[in-house]
Amino acid sequence: MISFNQNLKSNIYSKKSLLCVGLDIAPENIQSNNIQDLIDHSKVVIDATRNSAIAYKPNFAFFERWGSSGFKWLEEILTYIGNNHIKIADAKRGDIGNTAYQYACSIFDHFKFDAVTLNPYLGRDSIEPFIGNPEKGVFILCRTSNDSASDFQNEVVGDKPLYEKVAISAVSLNSNDNIGLVVGATALEEIIKVRKVAPNLPLLIPGVGAQGGSLEHSIKEGTSSGTALINISRAISFAGSMTKQDIHDAAKNYVDAMNRALR
Amino acid sequence: MISFNQNLKSNIYSKKSLLCVGLDIAPENIQSNNIQDLIDHSKVVIDATRNSAIAYKPNFAFFERWGSSGFKWLEEILTYIGNNHIKIADAKRGDIGNTAYQYACSIFDHFKFDAVTLNPYLGRDSIEPFIGNPEKGVFILCRTSNDSASDFQNEVVGDKPLYEKVAISAVSLNSNDNIGLVVGATALEEIIKVRKVAPNLPLLIPGVGAQGGSLEHSIKEGTSSGTALINISRAISFAGSMTKQDIHDAAKNYVDAMNRALR
Repeated sequence: MISFNQNLKSNIYSKKSLLCVGLDIAPENIQSNNIQDLIDHSKVVIDATRNSAIAYKPNFAFFERWGSSGFKWLEEILTYIGNNHIKIADAKRGDIGNTAYQYACSIFDHFKFDAVTLNPYLGRDSIEPFIGNPEKGVFILCRTSNDSASDFQNEVVGDKPLYEKVAISAVSLNSNDNIGLVVGATALEEIIKVRKVAPNLPLLIPGVGAQGGSLEHSIKEGTSSGTALINISRAISFAGSMTKQDIHDAAKNYVDAMNRALR
Repeated sequence: MISFNQNLKSNIYSKKSLLCVGLDIAPENIQSNNIQDLIDHSKVVIDATRNSAIAYKPNFAFFERWGSSGFKWLEEILTYIGNNHIKIADAKRGDIGNTAYQYACSIFDHFKFDAVTLNPYLGRDSIEPFIGNPEKGVFILCRTSNDSASDFQNEVVGDKPLYEKVAISAVSLNSNDNIGLVVGATALEEIIKVRKVAPNLPLLIPGVGAQGGSLEHSIKEGTSSGTALINISRAISFAGSMTKQDIHDAAKNYVDAMNRALR
């Protein structure tokens, strides 16, 4: 048996890529309200990035918007992705223990994801039901990439900002080697501080691309002592004229830039 | 047009009840792994409580566990509930702005809920897409009912615990009179403190029943200066032998106890 964090590391080394492709396919972006057009486009994105991505991260909101038809779409593309890529549920769930257990059944048993993003606000009860199996991973929201992330996450608790407290708590829960942290590329100083308290946890870094975070700096700091996975959603899925070729080229350019930054 | 908070207040007064019935129908509780048995039981719970409940709060985890079939079940029972009760999506969503917008489309436009529970960890960006329409409400997680709620929520930021900061921020966002707070019945001192900083926001109080919070004290403090909705899930849905009569009686007993506590 190989732990989730070890599996992630092996994939990064063997495929020479840090790319996680976020699947946030909105009708506003492809200018169609026909769900079949969205399904078709999501498959184009997957086909165009199979050789460059090591992970896919469907964002639940974009599927839930369509209710049961959206969840059917999610089930369909998880099968379409297959088993050669890590599948991360971007669900940001956080609930009391008995409810968190139901979410874990949904994400790991029903949808068969390899990992999930979680919100730490409810504390350890809300994390534990997801981390019992070392092969399944979680990425806990630590310092997010949005403007108002600092409303609460940067508030100082005792001598440390809240996001650092969250990182320290994640380290203490990581006995199965299957916990990572989400830290936005838009928050470079915070990446540096998180690396000090959680040197070995893998980081999932969103915020490069449409949100404007620096790829080069976030890789340099994010991989200073552990692995990092760089998530790109809109800047790949809706690249150029949204053809398979344009999407393929955008993903390849990102991977090339990642490898240059790693050198 | 009547705001969500005003509508909630009118319902409480006209129906003389504070009861929100949480729909958390787990296979573990009814001892069947057949989704049809769960669907049937959820309808029994609704029929048995129509006269005592003013609101229903389906908890998304229990539906998502079944994937697209679970979301079909959720769509079905929302129609089954009809328009004489307030429908609250217990989804605890929290995401960056453009994703939060997709969740708002899901919950208000697709599923047609009246309100939703939200997680505040990502700050105001994650709340704003839900509060533009005064008729639709949000309940922001403030101090939850679980054991590890205090891990982060009770950490002191400056001179106040984090949950109080969340309550103060909720008051400042409430220009459309459609924001409430979730505060657990298991955290009585915190209910008292929240009422000091957010005297007028409606409270959604879980944690009575299976979780052991005091109904009497949480009503006394929760309604000291504003309205409160008391959520009961397991202690109603799985009451006695789980017959319609047992569920009806359990709900009626709770409403009677609520009205005694209000006097």
